[in-house]
Amino acid sequence: MQSFTFRLPTNIHFGVGAIDALGKEAASLGKRALLVYGGGSIKRNGMYDAVRSQLESVGIEIIEYPGVRPNPLLSHADEGARIAREANADLVVATGGGSVIDEAKAIAAGAHEGGALWDFYIRTRRITGALPILAVQTLPASSSETNMAGVITNDETREKFSIRSPHICPRAAFLDPSVTTTIPLQYTAYACTDILSHVMEGYFTTTDPWAPVQDGMVEGLSRAVIDSMDRLLADPADLDARAAVMWAGALAWSGLMNAGVRGASIPVHMIEHPLSAHYDIAHGAGLSIVIPAWLRYVRDRIPERIVRFGREILRLGDALDGSNTPDQADIVIAALVEWYRSIGTPVTFAQGGLTNVDVDACTAQAIALGKLWGVPGHSESDIRAVYALCTG
Amino acid sequence: MQSFTFRLPTNIHFGVGAIDALGKEAASLGKRALLVYGGGSIKRNGMYDAVRSQLESVGIEIIEYPGVRPNPLLSHADEGARIAREANADLVVATGGGSVIDEAKAIAAGAHEGGALWDFYIRTRRITGALPILAVQTLPASSSETNMAGVITNDETREKFSIRSPHICPRAAFLDPSVTTTIPLQYTAYACTDILSHVMEGYFTTTDPWAPVQDGMVEGLSRAVIDSMDRLLADPADLDARAAVMWAGALAWSGLMNAGVRGASIPVHMIEHPLSAHYDIAHGAGLSIVIPAWLRYVRDRIPERIVRFGREILRLGDALDGSNTPDQADIVIAALVEWYRSIGTPVTFAQGGLTNVDVDACTAQAIALGKLWGVPGHSESDIRAVYALCTG
Repeated sequence: MQSFTFRLPTNIHFGVGAIDALGKEAASLGKRALLVYGGGSIKRNGMYDAVRSQLESVGIEIIEYPGVRPNPLLSHADEGARIAREANADLVVATGGGSVIDEAKAIAAGAHEGGALWDFYIRTRRITGALPILAVQTLPASSSETNMAGVITNDETREKFSIRSPHICPRAAFLDPSVTTTIPLQYTAYACTDILSHVMEGYFTTTDPWAPVQDGMVEGLSRAVIDSMDRLLADPADLDARAAVMWAGALAWSGLMNAGVRGASIPVHMIEHPLSAHYDIAHGAGLSIVIPAWLRYVRDRIPERIVRFGREILRLGDALDGSNTPDQADIVIAALVEWYRSIGTPVTFAQGGLTNVDVDACTAQAIALGKLWGVPGHSESDIRAVYALCTG
Repeated sequence: MQSFTFRLPTNIHFGVGAIDALGKEAASLGKRALLVYGGGSIKRNGMYDAVRSQLESVGIEIIEYPGVRPNPLLSHADEGARIAREANADLVVATGGGSVIDEAKAIAAGAHEGGALWDFYIRTRRITGALPILAVQTLPASSSETNMAGVITNDETREKFSIRSPHICPRAAFLDPSVTTTIPLQYTAYACTDILSHVMEGYFTTTDPWAPVQDGMVEGLSRAVIDSMDRLLADPADLDARAAVMWAGALAWSGLMNAGVRGASIPVHMIEHPLSAHYDIAHGAGLSIVIPAWLRYVRDRIPERIVRFGREILRLGDALDGSNTPDQADIVIAALVEWYRSIGTPVTFAQGGLTNVDVDACTAQAIALGKLWGVPGHSESDIRAVYALCTG
């Protein structure tokens, strides 16, 4: 293990009816809330009415800011920050999935700081404060409701970069699994792929000789996600499985699972971000394409970790011979690909509808992200090789 | 899963040299610190000097309050609160194990509230505020550094009760595993027993049909504790294993591992507390006596959970026949007893030096604790039966 500082300052309200705690939390933070959301899904699942009702019950004025897209756009966030400042909003209430919460973080910082938001993403300015944020998570996957990070795509340059600051960590999160039972299975599968990626990447990149607490928690949480997704294929309304995915989604990228893991980095996210930035493919779909390709690329370097993943998480014990050779790793990668197929997520560019990927542009962006995020050991040729393996 | 609210507001500074973050945290909280500690161990392991140096470096005045005992006493906490008030302390810095931090919590609440501390333990008064607390954990086990609970023993009545309030949750915790390499193996074994108990009790008492995130994290963390203890038997200075125990110790009773687990309760702690209150046996030693007895008592009711514990945590797959019968549970209980023996913790009253246990008094106290803590399903005769099984 290496040294770390861990903070999880978010009050997490979890369970059917969790939204009932929003009014009280909001009243302690402000009087005029910018309500950030996406399209119509929160109107269909009841959260729009519930959030408005909670805010109104404590006399909070509401300024609506809808229209956040999946892979949220910088221009929309800049506009949101401008509106929040003009309206003197003193609170941001995000209601939706990770995209909505990520954009709300940008707005909350921008409303406090003024100026061009992109500066914070390319790290030429530092976030010194933000409006307080409440996060109503309706599409669990990103842990955006419990962490201090947020991603945005620059519409002009098609760069998908991130910010990170304790000021943008939500003060409270509201997680009601019953709201998620209507999420289509395809998006649930993307979510599970994202959650798994958030814990797998540290698990595969660790240089720790022995970190059993983190390994054990990652293995347990990963099995839970896989088992839950399998149950949801049989019954999409299974509330126990929806609750498990939601809780796993809140923890996976909260900082807890990788805390102290020496060498943990996120090469798969680094290689995927350019794809969803350029081609607007769902992030989870991009990940299920990149993960097997990346694993095939590193199978000679980390066969032991891949085999362990197969044994402890995919429970492939009977199919493995007990050795840690690259051949055994191949069996594990094949089983993971098969699982992605079973839940309906793509595993090649073609399956993801990516027919003409600009590898030069994507590689350049991945290299830039790798510098910002501190991802070691991935040269331009490594990244090109992974993209080449994404063709199947 | 059931509804829950989860908070972990403590800034956790973990790693060799973590204490270097104390000065800055302290400076943001106060100017006059009550430094609470126990005997001489923090003078031998360097933490006493390091804490003083950190506080002095930011100009904080220090009032020393040593003398906290294992199983800390109410009278000493009352006196500490009186001294803190007289000295106008505005910060409490606890340096030691769970006993020191638990007593520091009582002092911090008492200094704010005034009056007799015991009222908070018997719940006739409610804690409405407390001095801010910083916790330097040197004997990890209790999660006291990350949670909002604290235990104390009333010296007159020999009752060992607890308080619970968000106000007494430490603002920051400092966890340096290198400080723990000199803890004698016996106390390390007690610590591991306590950590395991904190996660096992929820695992065994759950009424959830399916909560795979929590089950998976408990299984991973439990295996980590067992493997770490086994490594420490071979090399007590193994820093990776010390770090794993320390991180597991901080998480196990933080509220995270059992969050949302329907029916989770702590009958073993309920039955153990009267023993360490009356006979001053180490809490961990009391637990390794009670746990096997309690498991034998419930083996007909929850054979499946006990077998699962054996398969997933003790890795007894080869010794089990795949069924979930009480006979199979007995194999698991025997293996757990054997593990306690291997690490040198007692598994009977006699081994723990308890030659003449007052079962009437202990049962009465356990019943009272069960009411305060909401432990269901344990009548007086159940508790007596568990004590009877503690004789071996």
